[in-house]
Amino acid sequence: MRVLVTGAGGFIGATLLQLLGEGGGIGGHAVSAIAAVDRQFPAPMPGVLGIEGDLGDAQVRARIADFAPEVCFHLAAVPGGASEADPGMSRRVNLDATLDLFDLLGAMNSARPPVMVYASTIAVYGSDLRERVTDSMPLRPPLIYGAHKLACEILLADYTRRGLLDGRALRLPGIVARPRAPSGLASAFMSDLLHALAAGQPFTCPVSPDATAWWMSARRCAENLVHAAAMDPGTDSRRAWPLPVLRLSMAEIVQTLSQVYGVDGQSLVRYAPQPQLEAIYGRYPPLDDQAARALGLRDDGSAEALVRRSLGR
Amino acid sequence: MRVLVTGAGGFIGATLLQLLGEGGGIGGHAVSAIAAVDRQFPAPMPGVLGIEGDLGDAQVRARIADFAPEVCFHLAAVPGGASEADPGMSRRVNLDATLDLFDLLGAMNSARPPVMVYASTIAVYGSDLRERVTDSMPLRPPLIYGAHKLACEILLADYTRRGLLDGRALRLPGIVARPRAPSGLASAFMSDLLHALAAGQPFTCPVSPDATAWWMSARRCAENLVHAAAMDPGTDSRRAWPLPVLRLSMAEIVQTLSQVYGVDGQSLVRYAPQPQLEAIYGRYPPLDDQAARALGLRDDGSAEALVRRSLGR
Repeated sequence: MRVLVTGAGGFIGATLLQLLGEGGGIGGHAVSAIAAVDRQFPAPMPGVLGIEGDLGDAQVRARIADFAPEVCFHLAAVPGGASEADPGMSRRVNLDATLDLFDLLGAMNSARPPVMVYASTIAVYGSDLRERVTDSMPLRPPLIYGAHKLACEILLADYTRRGLLDGRALRLPGIVARPRAPSGLASAFMSDLLHALAAGQPFTCPVSPDATAWWMSARRCAENLVHAAAMDPGTDSRRAWPLPVLRLSMAEIVQTLSQVYGVDGQSLVRYAPQPQLEAIYGRYPPLDDQAARALGLRDDGSAEALVRRSLGR
Repeated sequence: MRVLVTGAGGFIGATLLQLLGEGGGIGGHAVSAIAAVDRQFPAPMPGVLGIEGDLGDAQVRARIADFAPEVCFHLAAVPGGASEADPGMSRRVNLDATLDLFDLLGAMNSARPPVMVYASTIAVYGSDLRERVTDSMPLRPPLIYGAHKLACEILLADYTRRGLLDGRALRLPGIVARPRAPSGLASAFMSDLLHALAAGQPFTCPVSPDATAWWMSARRCAENLVHAAAMDPGTDSRRAWPLPVLRLSMAEIVQTLSQVYGVDGQSLVRYAPQPQLEAIYGRYPPLDDQAARALGLRDDGSAEALVRRSLGR
C-alpha cells in the first residue's frame, strides 16, 4: 500500500510517520512505500520519500502523481491563528491547494479511488457551543480556518460521491503536546500547559480553571488517522466525523499533571482568562461521538493516559 | 446606491434588472447606477453599464472595482446539470470566481462593507429529504453545484464576520418560467411544463403527478433579492436563508394551468417519471421558512398567482 502524507514535517505528521514506520500497516495491509510532503524537512527520513516544496508547485504535484498514492493523509494546513492573520494564505493553502490535491489524486485512474483521510477540525462547529454537539447541529465556523476546512469537508464528500476519492474527514480537537515553538495555533496554550508543569515551571493559563476543552494525544490522533484509512464508513453519504475526545477542564488537567509529575500545579498555575480564548476554548460541551466510536475511532481512555501518552512518559 | 448584478444576462438577472429599472429603489434608497456583468448581453441596456466578460478576467475585475458597487447581486453561476457535466468549470465559476468576487469587493475600503446578496440554492439540502427541512438539519448537497454553493455560503458568512462584506445568501428554489431553451438546469422541466400547457401543447413530464416541488416565480424571486439587500438580519451569525416557497405537486400545477389557460391539462400531460429526477425533484417535504418570513421574504401567495406571475398573464 502506497501512502502519502502531506504536512508530514508538522507535529501530527511526524507522529503519523513514526507510527507508519513501526510497520503495523493499514487495516491489515502492509505499507510498501511512504512519500512525505512538506515545505521542508529538518532531516532525511530513512525509508521515506521526502518531497520538499509547496503543494501548489507544479514539480511537487508531478512527484505526487508519479508516486501514485493509494492512501493520502492530508494534514498540510495553515493553522487557525495564522489563518486569521492572513486570510489570503488560508484560502491558498487550506482551500485552493487542498482542492487541487483532491483533483490531482481524483484524476489518477487507479483501480480503486485513492483513500483521502482529511484532517478537518472541531473549529467547524462554532464558538458559541452551549449544548451537546451533535451530528444534526448547524455548523457555523467562528474563524476562517474552520470555514475553509468545512468547505473542504463538503467537497470531499462530493469527490467521494463521484467515485474519484474515498474520503474520510476527521474533525481533530486540540492535539497535545505540541512542541513549545510558536505554531500559529490559538490552542497552543493547551500544549504549553502540559510542557510547563511536566518541567515544574510556572504557567499563566489564558483560560479559567473551569474552562473545559476536548483533548487528544498526538499518538492517539495518529492511530485514529490510520484507522480511518481502513474503516468501512458504509453507504451513508456522511464522510466527516468528530474524533471521540476526552472532555476535561483545565483544573482536571492540572491535577493529573500534578499527580503524574509530582509537582504542585495549584501554585505553579496562575489563571488570567482572555475573553476571546475563553469564549472559544473554555466552553466545549459534551460531544456526541457515537457514530465515530461505532466506526472504531477512540479517545485516549483517561486523563492520565492522555498526559502520559502526550508527553511520552 | 450603486448596484452591481452578475449573471445579469440570465433569466433571473434580466428579471432583476427590469425590477431595478422600475425605480422602486432598495430599502427606500434610490438606485443611482447599475452595472451588469455577464459573458455577453443580447442587446444594449439603457441606463445600465454593461460589462461583458468572464468574472475571472482582469479587465472585468478592474471595471467592477472602478464601479465600486455598494450592493452586489451575485447571480452568475454554472447551473446544476452543467456543473455535473463539467465539475472543473463548476469549481472555476461557482467557487473560485465567486470567492475572487468576494475578495475584490471585500477589499474596497468603502465606508460600509458592500452588501452581497448571494444566490444560493435549495440544492444545498440533500436529495433524500424525507422530513420537514429545518435550519438544524445537516446539509448534504447531492450534486457538486450544491456543494460549491454551500461552500460559498459558509465563506460569505466569514467575510461578513470579518466586516469585509455584508452577506445575505438566499437559497433559491426552482424559479419559473424560464425560457424554453436548454439551460443546463436539471429542473428545467418545471418551466417547460408551464410553457407547454400555456400554449395548449402536449407535455411529457419526467416526474409523477404526485411529485411535489418548491415553486417561485422569477418576479417574486427578484423582489426577494431586492428585499434581501435591505433587510436587517440582526446580529445572528446566520447569513443564509431558504426563500419561502409554495409547495405544490405536478398535479396541482397542471390543474391550475388548466383553469388559467382553459386547457385540458389531464389529457395534454403524459407522466413518464425518471427515477433520478423523481428522487431529487419529486419529494420536497415541507420547508421551515419561518426565519425567512420573519425577515420579510415571501412566496408567490397562491398557485394561481405563481402561474400568472410566471407567465406574465
